Amino acid sequence: MVRFFVSPEDFSGGIPALTGENARHAKVLRLQTGEEVLLCDGNGKEWVCLVREALPARYLLDVLETRDSTAEAAVRISVYMAFPKADKLEHVIQKATELGASEIVAFPSARCVSRPDERSLAKKLDRWQKIAASAAEQSGRGRIPDVSVLPSYAAALARAAAADRALLFYENEHAVTLKMALQAKPFHSVSLITGPEGGLSEAEVEQARAAGLQVCTLGRRILRCETAPLCALSAVMYEAGEF
Amino acid sequence: MVRFFVSPEDFSGGIPALTGENARHAKVLRLQTGEEVLLCDGNGKEWVCLVREALPARYLLDVLETRDSTAEAAVRISVYMAFPKADKLEHVIQKATELGASEIVAFPSARCVSRPDERSLAKKLDRWQKIAASAAEQSGRGRIPDVSVLPSYAAALARAAAADRALLFYENEHAVTLKMALQAKPFHSVSLITGPEGGLSEAEVEQARAAGLQVCTLGRRILRCETAPLCALSAVMYEAGEF
Repeated sequence: MVRFFVSPEDFSGGIPALTGENARHAKVLRLQTGEEVLLCDGNGKEWVCLVREALPARYLLDVLETRDSTAEAAVRISVYMAFPKADKLEHVIQKATELGASEIVAFPSARCVSRPDERSLAKKLDRWQKIAASAAEQSGRGRIPDVSVLPSYAAALARAAAADRALLFYENEHAVTLKMALQAKPFHSVSLITGPEGGLSEAEVEQARAAGLQVCTLGRRILRCETAPLCALSAVMYEAGEF
Repeated sequence: MVRFFVSPEDFSGGIPALTGENARHAKVLRLQTGEEVLLCDGNGKEWVCLVREALPARYLLDVLETRDSTAEAAVRISVYMAFPKADKLEHVIQKATELGASEIVAFPSARCVSRPDERSLAKKLDRWQKIAASAAEQSGRGRIPDVSVLPSYAAALARAAAADRALLFYENEHAVTLKMALQAKPFHSVSLITGPEGGLSEAEVEQARAAGLQVCTLGRRILRCETAPLCALSAVMYEAGEF
Protein backbone atom coordinates (compact mmCIF):
# COMPACT_ATOMS: atom_id res chain seq x y z
CA MET A 1 0.00 0.00 0.00
CA VAL A 2 1.47 3.39 -1.00
CA ARG A 3 1.93 5.86 1.87
CA PHE A 4 1.44 9.62 1.80
CA PHE A 5 2.11 12.15 4.54
CA VAL A 6 -0.80 14.59 4.75
CA SER A 7 -1.52 17.81 6.64
CA PRO A 8 -4.83 19.00 8.20
CA GLU A 9 -5.62 21.05 5.03
CA ASP A 10 -5.86 17.77 3.11
CA PHE A 11 -9.08 17.01 5.02
CA SER A 12 -11.25 19.87 3.79
CA GLY A 13 -14.88 19.16 4.67
CA GLY A 14 -13.81 15.95 6.43
CA ILE A 15 -12.98 14.21 3.14
CA PRO A 16 -9.29 13.44 2.71
CA ALA A 17 -7.58 14.16 -0.59
CA LEU A 18 -4.19 13.91 -2.19
CA THR A 19 -3.18 17.39 -3.37
CA GLY A 20 -0.06 19.23 -4.53
CA GLU A 21 3.10 17.11 -4.28
CA ASN A 22 1.07 14.06 -3.17
CA ALA A 23 -1.19 14.33 -6.24
CA ARG A 24 1.85 14.61 -8.53
CA HIS A 25 3.35 11.54 -6.88
CA ALA A 26 0.04 9.64 -7.24
CA LYS A 27 -0.03 10.53 -10.93
CA VAL A 28 3.49 9.16 -11.43
CA LEU A 29 2.37 5.96 -9.71
CA ARG A 30 -0.74 5.82 -11.99
CA LEU A 31 -3.01 5.50 -8.95
CA GLN A 32 -6.50 4.33 -10.01
CA THR A 33 -10.01 4.66 -8.60
CA GLY A 34 -10.66 1.79 -6.17
CA GLU A 35 -7.02 1.38 -5.08
CA GLU A 36 -6.04 1.51 -1.39
CA VAL A 37 -3.59 4.08 -0.02
CA LEU A 38 -2.30 4.84 3.45
CA LEU A 39 -2.34 8.42 4.77
CA CYS A 40 -0.11 9.36 7.71
CA ASP A 41 -0.25 12.60 9.65
CA GLY A 42 3.45 12.30 10.48
CA ASN A 43 2.50 12.26 14.11
CA GLY A 44 1.59 8.63 14.66
CA LYS A 45 -1.94 8.55 13.17
CA GLU A 46 -2.84 6.71 9.94
CA TRP A 47 -5.87 6.34 7.65
CA VAL A 48 -6.40 3.43 5.29
CA CYS A 49 -8.26 4.97 2.31
CA LEU A 50 -9.81 4.05 -1.02
CA VAL A 51 -9.40 6.28 -4.08
CA ARG A 52 -12.94 7.45 -4.85
CA GLU A 53 -12.17 9.78 -7.73
CA ALA A 54 -9.00 10.80 -9.57
CA LEU A 55 -9.33 14.44 -10.69
CA PRO A 56 -6.56 16.14 -12.70
CA ALA A 57 -4.72 17.65 -9.70
CA ARG A 58 -6.57 16.07 -6.82
CA TYR A 59 -7.46 12.54 -5.69
CA LEU A 60 -10.57 12.26 -3.52
CA LEU A 61 -10.46 9.46 -0.97
CA ASP A 62 -12.80 7.54 1.33
CA VAL A 63 -11.57 6.50 4.78
CA LEU A 64 -11.81 2.76 5.44
CA GLU A 65 -10.00 2.69 8.77
CA THR A 66 -8.39 5.10 11.22
CA ARG A 67 -5.57 3.68 13.34
CA ASP A 68 -2.36 4.39 15.23
CA SER A 69 0.83 3.80 13.28
CA THR A 70 2.25 0.33 13.88
CA ALA A 71 5.78 1.21 12.75
CA GLU A 72 6.82 3.46 15.63
CA ALA A 73 9.14 2.22 18.34
CA ALA A 74 7.92 2.29 21.94
CA VAL A 75 11.24 3.74 23.07
CA ARG A 76 12.00 7.41 22.33
CA ILE A 77 15.58 7.83 21.15
CA SER A 78 17.10 11.26 20.62
CA VAL A 79 20.25 11.42 18.52
CA TYR A 80 22.48 14.36 19.52
CA MET A 81 25.28 14.95 17.06
CA ALA A 82 28.03 17.56 17.13
CA PHE A 83 28.02 19.35 13.75
CA PRO A 84 29.98 17.29 11.25
CA LYS A 85 30.57 18.33 7.65
CA ALA A 86 27.26 18.90 5.87
CA ASP A 87 26.94 15.70 3.87
CA LYS A 88 27.57 13.58 6.98
CA LEU A 89 24.83 15.28 8.96
CA GLU A 90 22.42 14.67 6.09
CA HIS A 91 23.50 11.03 5.99
CA VAL A 92 22.85 10.65 9.73
CA ILE A 93 19.45 12.36 9.49
CA GLN A 94 18.38 9.96 6.74
CA LYS A 95 19.68 6.81 8.41
CA ALA A 96 18.61 7.70 11.95
CA THR A 97 15.10 8.29 10.61
CA GLU A 98 15.05 4.85 8.96
CA LEU A 99 16.34 3.29 12.16
CA GLY A 100 13.50 4.83 14.15
CA ALA A 101 14.98 7.83 16.02
CA SER A 102 12.47 10.24 17.56
CA GLU A 103 14.57 13.30 16.84
CA ILE A 104 17.95 14.43 15.62
CA VAL A 105 19.58 17.36 17.39
CA ALA A 106 22.73 19.05 16.09
CA PHE A 107 24.92 21.24 18.29
CA PRO A 108 28.35 22.89 18.19
CA SER A 109 31.34 21.51 20.11
CA ALA A 110 34.96 22.63 20.53
CA ARG A 111 36.46 20.66 17.65
CA CYS A 112 33.67 21.13 15.10
CA VAL A 113 35.30 22.26 11.86
CA SER A 114 31.95 23.04 10.33
CA ARG A 115 29.00 24.86 11.80
CA PRO A 116 26.32 26.67 9.84
CA ASP A 117 26.01 30.42 10.35
CA GLU A 118 22.80 31.95 11.68
CA ARG A 119 21.78 33.27 8.27
CA SER A 120 21.85 29.95 6.43
CA LEU A 121 20.48 27.94 9.33
CA ALA A 122 16.75 28.36 8.62
CA LYS A 123 17.23 27.19 5.04
CA LYS A 124 19.33 24.25 6.18
CA LEU A 125 16.86 23.19 8.85
CA ASP A 126 14.16 23.20 6.20
CA ARG A 127 16.30 20.97 3.98
CA TRP A 128 17.14 18.63 6.88
CA GLN A 129 13.49 18.33 7.87
CA LYS A 130 12.66 17.38 4.27
CA ILE A 131 15.32 14.66 4.32
CA ALA A 132 13.73 13.28 7.50
CA ALA A 133 10.24 13.42 5.94
CA SER A 134 11.37 11.60 2.83
CA ALA A 135 13.21 8.91 4.83
CA ALA A 136 10.17 8.50 7.12
CA GLU A 137 7.95 7.95 4.09
CA GLN A 138 10.35 5.45 2.48
CA SER A 139 10.81 3.45 5.65
CA GLY A 140 7.08 3.35 6.40
CA ARG A 141 7.23 5.36 9.60
CA GLY A 142 4.14 6.96 11.08
CA ARG A 143 6.07 9.87 12.55
CA ILE A 144 8.56 12.29 11.06
CA PRO A 145 11.43 12.88 13.50
CA ASP A 146 12.12 16.47 14.47
CA VAL A 147 15.42 17.90 13.33
CA SER A 148 16.63 20.79 15.47
CA VAL A 149 19.74 22.75 16.34
CA LEU A 150 20.91 23.92 19.75
CA PRO A 151 23.17 26.95 20.24
CA SER A 152 25.77 25.35 22.52
CA TYR A 153 27.25 22.14 23.85
CA ALA A 154 26.00 23.04 27.34
CA ALA A 155 22.45 23.38 25.99
CA ALA A 156 22.73 19.96 24.35
CA LEU A 157 23.91 18.36 27.61
CA ALA A 158 21.14 19.96 29.65
CA ARG A 159 18.42 18.85 27.20
CA ALA A 160 19.88 15.34 26.72
CA ALA A 161 20.13 14.77 30.47
CA ALA A 162 16.33 14.84 30.82
CA ALA A 163 15.98 11.35 29.23
CA ASP A 164 15.76 8.13 31.28
CA ARG A 165 19.21 7.30 29.95
CA ALA A 166 21.56 10.03 28.77
CA LEU A 167 24.67 8.53 27.17
CA LEU A 168 27.77 10.06 25.65
CA PHE A 169 30.18 7.95 23.59
CA TYR A 170 33.89 8.55 23.98
CA GLU A 171 36.74 6.61 22.41
CA ASN A 172 38.88 6.85 25.53
CA GLU A 173 36.24 5.28 27.76
CA HIS A 174 37.04 1.58 28.06
CA ALA A 175 35.28 0.40 31.22
CA VAL A 176 31.58 1.22 30.82
CA THR A 177 29.89 -0.42 27.85
CA LEU A 178 26.62 0.65 26.28
CA LYS A 179 25.15 -2.65 27.48
CA MET A 180 26.09 -1.94 31.11
CA ALA A 181 24.53 1.51 30.84
CA LEU A 182 21.30 0.24 29.26
CA GLN A 183 20.76 -2.86 31.36
CA ALA A 184 21.16 -1.04 34.69
CA LYS A 185 17.40 -0.36 34.79
CA PRO A 186 14.40 -0.07 32.41
CA PHE A 187 14.15 2.94 30.10
CA HIS A 188 11.54 4.62 27.91
CA SER A 189 13.67 7.45 26.55
CA VAL A 190 17.34 7.56 25.65
CA SER A 191 19.66 10.39 24.56
CA LEU A 192 22.74 9.46 22.54
CA ILE A 193 25.52 12.05 22.22
CA THR A 194 28.42 11.69 19.80
CA GLY A 195 31.23 14.05 18.81
CA PRO A 196 32.42 15.64 15.56
CA GLU A 197 35.20 14.45 13.20
CA GLY A 198 37.94 15.41 15.67
CA GLY A 199 36.14 13.90 18.66
CA LEU A 200 35.07 15.49 21.91
CA SER A 201 37.74 17.03 24.13
CA GLU A 202 38.53 15.61 27.55
CA ALA A 203 37.14 18.79 29.10
CA GLU A 204 33.88 18.32 27.22
CA VAL A 205 33.61 14.74 28.43
CA GLU A 206 34.11 15.91 32.01
CA GLN A 207 31.48 18.59 31.49
CA ALA A 208 29.07 15.87 30.33
CA ARG A 209 29.72 13.78 33.45
CA ALA A 210 29.07 16.83 35.58
CA ALA A 211 25.76 17.34 33.73
CA GLY A 212 24.73 13.81 34.71
CA LEU A 213 25.51 11.95 31.48
CA GLN A 214 26.88 8.43 31.45
CA VAL A 215 30.06 8.13 29.38
CA CYS A 216 30.39 4.80 27.52
CA THR A 217 32.33 2.97 24.85
CA LEU A 218 31.11 1.68 21.48
CA GLY A 219 33.87 -0.91 21.32
CA ARG A 220 37.57 -1.09 20.60
CA ARG A 221 37.40 0.25 17.06
CA ILE A 222 37.40 3.98 16.34
CA LEU A 223 34.13 4.80 14.57
CA ARG A 224 33.76 7.75 12.22
CA CYS A 225 31.54 10.53 13.49
CA GLU A 226 28.72 9.53 11.11
CA THR A 227 28.96 5.83 12.01
CA ALA A 228 28.90 6.11 15.81
CA PRO A 229 25.35 7.49 16.27
CA LEU A 230 23.86 4.91 13.88
CA CYS A 231 25.70 2.04 15.54
CA ALA A 232 24.51 3.18 18.98
CA LEU A 233 20.95 3.74 17.74
CA SER A 234 20.83 0.24 16.20
CA ALA A 235 22.06 -1.32 19.43
CA VAL A 236 19.58 0.58 21.62
CA MET A 237 16.67 -0.43 19.35
CA TYR A 238 17.89 -4.02 19.59
CA GLU A 239 18.16 -3.85 23.38
CA ALA A 240 14.68 -2.30 23.56
CA GLY A 241 13.27 -5.38 21.82
CA GLU A 242 12.50 -3.74 18.47
CA PHE A 243 14.10 -6.56 16.46
CA MET B 1 50.50 6.17 17.89
CA VAL B 2 50.30 6.16 14.08
CA ARG B 3 49.40 2.79 12.52
CA PHE B 4 50.73 1.30 9.30
CA PHE B 5 49.75 -1.91 7.57
CA VAL B 6 52.85 -3.76 6.40
CA SER B 7 53.56 -6.84 4.30
CA PRO B 8 56.27 -9.51 4.77
CA GLU B 9 58.55 -7.67 2.29
CA ASP B 10 58.73 -4.79 4.75
CA PHE B 11 60.78 -7.03 7.08
CA SER B 12 63.83 -7.57 4.87
CA GLY B 13 66.63 -9.03 6.98
CA GLY B 14 64.32 -9.10 10.01
CA ILE B 15 64.36 -5.30 10.35
CA PRO B 16 60.99 -3.68 9.69
CA ALA B 17 60.78 -0.59 7.53
CA LEU B 18 58.21 1.80 6.16
CA THR B 19 58.49 1.80 2.37
CA GLY B 20 56.48 2.92 -0.65
CA GLU B 21 53.06 4.32 0.28
CA ASN B 22 53.82 3.96 4.00
CA ALA B 23 57.00 6.01 3.63
CA ARG B 24 55.12 8.72 1.72
CA HIS B 25 52.49 8.79 4.46
CA ALA B 26 55.20 8.98 7.15
CA LYS B 27 56.77 11.92 5.33
CA VAL B 28 53.44 13.78 5.24
CA LEU B 29 53.12 13.16 9.00
CA ARG B 30 56.73 14.43 9.49
CA LEU B 31 57.64 11.30 11.42
CA GLN B 32 60.91 11.77 13.32
CA THR B 33 63.67 9.51 14.60
CA GLY B 34 62.75 8.26 18.08
CA GLU B 35 58.98 8.36 17.55
CA GLU B 36 56.81 5.30 18.16
CA VAL B 37 54.68 3.74 15.43
CA LEU B 38 52.46 0.67 15.29
CA LEU B 39 52.84 -1.86 12.46
CA CYS B 40 49.99 -4.27 11.71
CA ASP B 41 50.19 -7.25 9.40
CA GLY B 42 46.46 -6.92 8.66
CA ASN B 43 46.04 -10.39 10.04
CA GLY B 44 45.82 -9.74 13.77
CA LYS B 45 49.54 -9.28 14.61
CA GLU B 46 51.08 -5.96 15.65
CA TRP B 47 54.53 -4.54 16.34
CA VAL B 48 55.20 -1.47 18.45
CA CYS B 49 58.29 0.12 16.83
CA LEU B 50 60.67 3.03 17.23
CA VAL B 51 61.88 5.03 14.22
CA ARG B 52 65.63 4.35 14.12
CA GLU B 53 66.48 6.24 10.96
CA ALA B 54 64.49 8.31 8.47
CA LEU B 55 65.99 7.84 4.98
CA PRO B 56 64.58 9.72 1.97
CA ALA B 57 62.18 6.96 0.85
CA ARG B 58 62.48 4.49 3.71
CA TYR B 59 62.10 4.60 7.49
CA LEU B 60 64.09 1.97 9.39
CA LEU B 61 62.46 0.78 12.61
CA ASP B 62 63.34 -1.13 15.78
CA VAL B 63 60.76 -3.49 17.27
CA LEU B 64 59.92 -2.73 20.90
CA GLU B 65 57.09 -5.22 21.33
CA THR B 66 55.27 -7.90 19.31
CA ARG B 67 51.65 -8.52 20.24
CA ASP B 68 48.23 -9.67 19.07
CA SER B 69 45.88 -6.90 17.99
CA THR B 70 43.55 -5.79 20.78
CA ALA B 71 40.96 -4.23 18.47
CA GLU B 72 39.56 -7.38 16.89
CA ALA B 73 36.21 -8.79 17.95
CA ALA B 74 36.09 -12.33 19.30
CA VAL B 75 33.03 -13.06 17.18
CA ARG B 76 33.50 -13.57 13.42
CA ILE B 77 30.76 -11.80 11.48
CA SER B 78 30.41 -12.23 7.72
CA VAL B 79 28.31 -9.64 5.91
CA TYR B 80 26.67 -11.09 2.79
CA MET B 81 25.13 -8.41 0.61
CA ALA B 82 23.23 -8.78 -2.66
CA PHE B 83 24.85 -6.42 -5.20
CA PRO B 84 23.44 -2.93 -4.71
CA LYS B 85 24.41 0.05 -6.85
CA ALA B 86 28.17 0.62 -6.72
CA ASP B 87 28.37 3.53 -4.29
CA LYS B 88 26.22 1.70 -1.75
CA LEU B 89 28.42 -1.39 -1.77
CA GLU B 90 31.45 0.83 -1.19
CA HIS B 91 29.63 2.53 1.68
CA VAL B 92 28.83 -0.84 3.27
CA ILE B 93 32.41 -2.09 2.85
CA GLN B 94 33.75 1.00 4.59
CA LYS B 95 31.22 1.00 7.44
CA ALA B 96 31.18 -2.78 8.00
CA THR B 97 34.96 -2.65 8.32
CA GLU B 98 34.75 0.09 10.95
CA LEU B 99 32.09 -1.88 12.81
CA GLY B 100 34.35 -4.93 12.96
CA ALA B 101 33.09 -7.35 10.27
CA SER B 102 35.41 -10.23 9.40
CA GLU B 103 34.50 -10.23 5.74
CA ILE B 104 32.14 -8.72 3.21
CA VAL B 105 30.76 -11.00 0.51
CA ALA B 106 28.76 -9.68 -2.46
CA PHE B 107 26.55 -11.94 -4.55
CA PRO B 108 23.88 -11.62 -7.27
CA SER B 109 20.17 -12.10 -6.53
CA ALA B 110 17.03 -12.01 -8.66
CA ARG B 111 16.17 -8.34 -8.20
CA CYS B 112 19.71 -6.91 -8.37
CA VAL B 113 19.63 -4.02 -10.84
CA SER B 114 23.38 -3.75 -10.80
CA ARG B 115 25.98 -6.47 -11.01
CA PRO B 116 29.53 -6.04 -12.26
CA ASP B 117 30.53 -7.95 -15.37
CA GLU B 118 33.35 -10.51 -15.27
CA ARG B 119 35.78 -8.19 -17.05
CA SER B 120 35.54 -5.30 -14.61
CA LEU B 121 35.31 -7.48 -11.51
CA ALA B 122 39.03 -7.92 -10.81
CA LYS B 123 39.55 -4.17 -10.92
CA LYS B 124 36.54 -3.57 -8.70
CA LEU B 125 37.60 -6.17 -6.14
CA ASP B 126 40.96 -4.48 -5.96
CA ARG B 127 39.25 -1.13 -5.32
CA TRP B 128 36.92 -2.64 -2.69
CA GLN B 129 39.81 -4.30 -0.89
CA LYS B 130 41.58 -0.93 -0.76
CA ILE B 131 38.49 0.68 0.78
CA ALA B 132 38.49 -2.04 3.45
CA ALA B 133 42.22 -1.57 4.10
CA SER B 134 41.85 2.17 4.47
CA ALA B 135 38.84 1.84 6.81
CA ALA B 136 40.69 -0.80 8.86
CA GLU B 137 43.62 1.56 9.28
CA GLN B 138 41.41 4.53 10.24
CA SER B 139 39.41 2.55 12.77
CA GLY B 140 42.51 1.00 14.35
CA ARG B 141 41.73 -2.58 13.39
CA GLY B 142 44.40 -5.24 13.41
CA ARG B 143 42.85 -7.19 10.57
CA ILE B 144 41.69 -6.13 7.11
CA PRO B 145 38.38 -7.83 6.27
CA ASP B 146 38.31 -9.88 3.09
CA VAL B 147 36.07 -8.58 0.35
CA SER B 148 34.93 -11.27 -2.06
CA VAL B 149 32.29 -12.02 -4.66
CA LEU B 150 30.32 -15.23 -5.17
CA PRO B 151 28.86 -16.23 -8.54
CA SER B 152 25.32 -17.05 -7.38
CA TYR B 153 22.73 -16.68 -4.64
CA ALA B 154 22.87 -20.45 -4.04
CA ALA B 155 26.64 -20.25 -3.50
CA ALA B 156 26.11 -17.43 -0.98
CA LEU B 157 23.54 -19.46 0.95
CA ALA B 158 25.73 -22.56 1.04
CA ARG B 159 28.75 -20.62 2.29
CA ALA B 160 26.76 -18.54 4.78
CA ALA B 161 25.10 -21.62 6.25
CA ALA B 162 28.43 -22.88 7.61
CA ALA B 163 28.45 -20.25 10.41
CA ASP B 164 27.16 -20.96 13.95
CA ARG B 165 24.29 -18.61 13.15
CA ALA B 166 23.23 -17.99 9.54
CA LEU B 167 20.61 -15.24 9.37
CA LEU B 168 18.70 -13.70 6.51
CA PHE B 169 16.73 -10.49 7.00
CA TYR B 170 13.37 -10.16 5.28
CA GLU B 171 10.88 -7.32 5.60
CA ASN B 172 7.90 -9.71 5.51
CA GLU B 173 9.14 -11.76 8.44
CA HIS B 174 7.42 -10.45 11.57
CA ALA B 175 7.62 -13.26 14.11
CA VAL B 176 11.31 -14.13 14.54
CA THR B 177 13.48 -11.28 15.78
CA LEU B 178 17.25 -11.07 15.51
CA LYS B 179 17.36 -11.27 19.31
CA MET B 180 15.42 -14.55 19.35
CA ALA B 181 17.78 -15.97 16.71
CA LEU B 182 20.92 -14.87 18.55
CA GLN B 183 19.93 -15.73 22.09
CA ALA B 184 18.87 -19.30 21.25
CA LYS B 185 22.40 -20.57 21.98
CA PRO B 186 25.99 -19.25 22.09
CA PHE B 187 27.78 -18.35 18.84
CA HIS B 188 31.30 -17.66 17.62
CA SER B 189 30.52 -16.98 13.98
CA VAL B 190 27.53 -15.30 12.35
CA SER B 191 26.50 -14.82 8.72
CA LEU B 192 24.20 -11.91 7.92
CA ILE B 193 22.42 -11.90 4.55
CA THR B 194 20.54 -8.90 3.20
CA GLY B 195 18.90 -8.21 -0.16
CA PRO B 196 19.34 -5.59 -2.90
CA GLU B 197 17.35 -2.34 -3.45
CA GLY B 198 14.24 -4.27 -4.56
CA GLY B 199 14.47 -6.82 -1.75
CA LEU B 200 14.72 -10.59 -1.93
CA SER B 201 11.89 -12.48 -3.62
CA GLU B 202 9.66 -14.85 -1.66
CA ALA B 203 11.13 -17.75 -3.62
CA GLU B 204 14.63 -16.68 -2.58
CA VAL B 205 13.58 -16.50 1.05
CA GLU B 206 12.18 -20.04 0.83
CA GLN B 207 15.39 -21.19 -0.82
CA ALA B 208 17.30 -19.73 2.14
CA ARG B 209 15.14 -21.58 4.65
CA ALA B 210 15.73 -24.80 2.74
CA ALA B 211 19.48 -24.13 2.91
CA GLY B 212 19.23 -23.95 6.71
CA LEU B 213 19.19 -20.19 7.21
CA GLN B 214 17.10 -18.52 9.89
CA VAL B 215 14.86 -15.78 8.47
CA CYS B 216 14.41 -12.80 10.82
CA THR B 217 13.14 -9.24 11.06
CA LEU B 218 15.10 -6.04 11.72
CA GLY B 219 12.02 -4.28 13.04
CA ARG B 220 8.88 -2.66 11.71
CA ARG B 221 10.58 -0.04 9.59
CA ILE B 222 11.75 -0.76 6.06
CA LEU B 223 15.51 -0.27 5.96
CA ARG B 224 17.37 0.64 2.79
CA CYS B 225 19.62 -2.06 1.42
CA GLU B 226 22.75 -0.25 2.62
CA THR B 227 21.33 0.39 6.11
CA ALA B 228 20.14 -3.13 6.94
CA PRO B 229 23.53 -4.92 7.06
CA LEU B 230 25.08 -2.19 9.23
CA CYS B 231 22.13 -2.17 11.62
CA ALA B 232 22.31 -5.97 11.95
CA LEU B 233 26.09 -5.92 12.35
CA SER B 234 25.89 -3.27 15.10
CA ALA B 235 23.26 -5.30 16.97
CA VAL B 236 25.22 -8.57 16.73
CA MET B 237 28.39 -6.86 18.01
CA TYR B 238 26.34 -5.44 20.88
CA GLU B 239 24.81 -8.85 21.68
CA ALA B 240 28.28 -10.42 21.54
CA GLY B 241 29.42 -8.07 24.30
CA GLU B 242 31.67 -5.86 22.17
CA PHE B 243 30.25 -2.63 23.62
